[in-house]
Amino acid sequence: MKIGDLGEFSFIERIKPGCLNRKSGIVSGIGDDCAVFQAGKGRAILLTTDMLIEDIHFRRHEIPPRLLGRKSLAASISDIAAMGGTPGEALISIGIPRNLEIDYLDHLYDGLKAIAAEYEINILGGDTVLSPDRLVVNIALTGEEDIEQVLYRDGAKPGDIIFLSGKVGSAAAGLDLLKSGREFEYRIALLESHFNPVPHVWSGRVIASSGLASSMIDISDGLAGDLGHICRDSGVGAAIELDNIPVSKELASYCSLHRLSIENFILYGGEDYVLLGTVPEDSSPALEDALKSQECEYYMIGRITEEKSIKLLYGDGRFRELERSGYDHFHK
Amino acid sequence: MKIGDLGEFSFIERIKPGCLNRKSGIVSGIGDDCAVFQAGKGRAILLTTDMLIEDIHFRRHEIPPRLLGRKSLAASISDIAAMGGTPGEALISIGIPRNLEIDYLDHLYDGLKAIAAEYEINILGGDTVLSPDRLVVNIALTGEEDIEQVLYRDGAKPGDIIFLSGKVGSAAAGLDLLKSGREFEYRIALLESHFNPVPHVWSGRVIASSGLASSMIDISDGLAGDLGHICRDSGVGAAIELDNIPVSKELASYCSLHRLSIENFILYGGEDYVLLGTVPEDSSPALEDALKSQECEYYMIGRITEEKSIKLLYGDGRFRELERSGYDHFHK
Repeated sequence: MKIGDLGEFSFIERIKPGCLNRKSGIVSGIGDDCAVFQAGKGRAILLTTDMLIEDIHFRRHEIPPRLLGRKSLAASISDIAAMGGTPGEALISIGIPRNLEIDYLDHLYDGLKAIAAEYEINILGGDTVLSPDRLVVNIALTGEEDIEQVLYRDGAKPGDIIFLSGKVGSAAAGLDLLKSGREFEYRIALLESHFNPVPHVWSGRVIASSGLASSMIDISDGLAGDLGHICRDSGVGAAIELDNIPVSKELASYCSLHRLSIENFILYGGEDYVLLGTVPEDSSPALEDALKSQECEYYMIGRITEEKSIKLLYGDGRFRELERSGYDHFHK
Repeated sequence: MKIGDLGEFSFIERIKPGCLNRKSGIVSGIGDDCAVFQAGKGRAILLTTDMLIEDIHFRRHEIPPRLLGRKSLAASISDIAAMGGTPGEALISIGIPRNLEIDYLDHLYDGLKAIAAEYEINILGGDTVLSPDRLVVNIALTGEEDIEQVLYRDGAKPGDIIFLSGKVGSAAAGLDLLKSGREFEYRIALLESHFNPVPHVWSGRVIASSGLASSMIDISDGLAGDLGHICRDSGVGAAIELDNIPVSKELASYCSLHRLSIENFILYGGEDYVLLGTVPEDSSPALEDALKSQECEYYMIGRITEEKSIKLLYGDGRFRELERSGYDHFHK
């Protein structure tokens, strides 16, 4: 059997047995956005890693190196945000084709350092190696948080409100613009969403420190897929209302101009890096207040259900059941 | 200018400015074996990362996947050992060619899990992505240590004794055997040194907890290169005696049989993963006792000098000055 025949989830399930050799201090292992372990009384260290390989995750001629640097670190920052943590220390491994221009690397690191500075992250080192032909970037990023505040994927309960911390679908529309070469008046805004997504660290901190939410994840694989992760890990289902899912006016206009299905971008477009979470109904107004008082966004898009399917409800009362697959790492 | 025109050191110097955005809690940044930051009162978290790319660091048909798994993690474990720490939590990123057999991955993870179990390391997750053609493995590994015990590269003082925690050169001889196809009676022993090096975590713990040593590093780039790192960072030089550098009987016999220069293997062969350190002369006997009482090895191979060159002394009183270059990541 080839790896192409396995999904990422079944691969993780396959390698899981035998990975834990100490129980003490481990708060969470394989399968969430970050690994979590205890360090010092009441404090958790979060740890996440992301690998980007040329021609799979990016094309060198399509993305300027500075933005590639930003986006590489943004993915890991968003993993820390997804659990409510504050990002801390980054190690960057880079596999460099021998004929790469030094200028390219300088710009790549300019991008890495710029986003690191914005989030007060230290780049503390890494590994620099040769690569035969393709550029490879791997980020390892730590975060920190009160151990009691860490938000996992497995805490959603039937009846909980499902919320988003921002608009979805624009990053995928930016990619679509790039691939299709279509004309569009607000081209820059969508490309910016694709090339330069903004991780929601501050929203994540407000949500985690409120103590109100029951689960959280970031939108990296697409709303359907990431909601699927929460539902699978929490043993629940969900019903979301299409009309309540927030989208940018540029995405709406792009879809209407080119007669594209906005649903596809909303549900299956990844890398928006907004946060998706759940909160008990009673606590939803307080969470909304907490977020809005910090100039953060809050959109209620549906409810967690006991029945384990994920349903999309339309404004006219119709609904359909969603497949949970979002971005699939092995079947692109 | 191409990256091939820069050494690793000048690349690190080039990217260093602007990497630190918080000062609090950071104990050491770019340039040592691990990044070190504070977590909890008096405790340091160590963090290291290593990237291995197919056809640069290994050839898939030459190394069994189980040993590739072991060796990948061994390199990072040795970085933790080099600072005297105890390895803790590992995240493994893997870029997988689509047509790779699942069996191959199972064996790779068997090797990763086996060495993780031996060192009581938890594999807490990672990232699994597609790769166009070559297998890529990136390890991120944490360690832990009393903050006062952490050993850096920059503490060597003139007059200090230079020591090794084990024999050097066999890993490089194993690689030479493999590349040359030469016959050799003790082939297996040298291949084992190359494919399955043993990180010296316990020696590192004994050395660090003794509080006696002044600097430490692991032999990953070769004795000349790694001693060069200590000398450069400490602002000193060194004189080492060839006859005192410990080698295995298999290496000695291989070199004598095939009339190969043992010096080359000893000085420029990397990946032995033994520890190289310095200790004030007065404290050397106590350190030797501490190590030997724990069944660890201790070899005195020379002295730190004020003069900044690195000299190799021969048994007959001659000497020559060494170039510091060991394994060069960009000029293989």
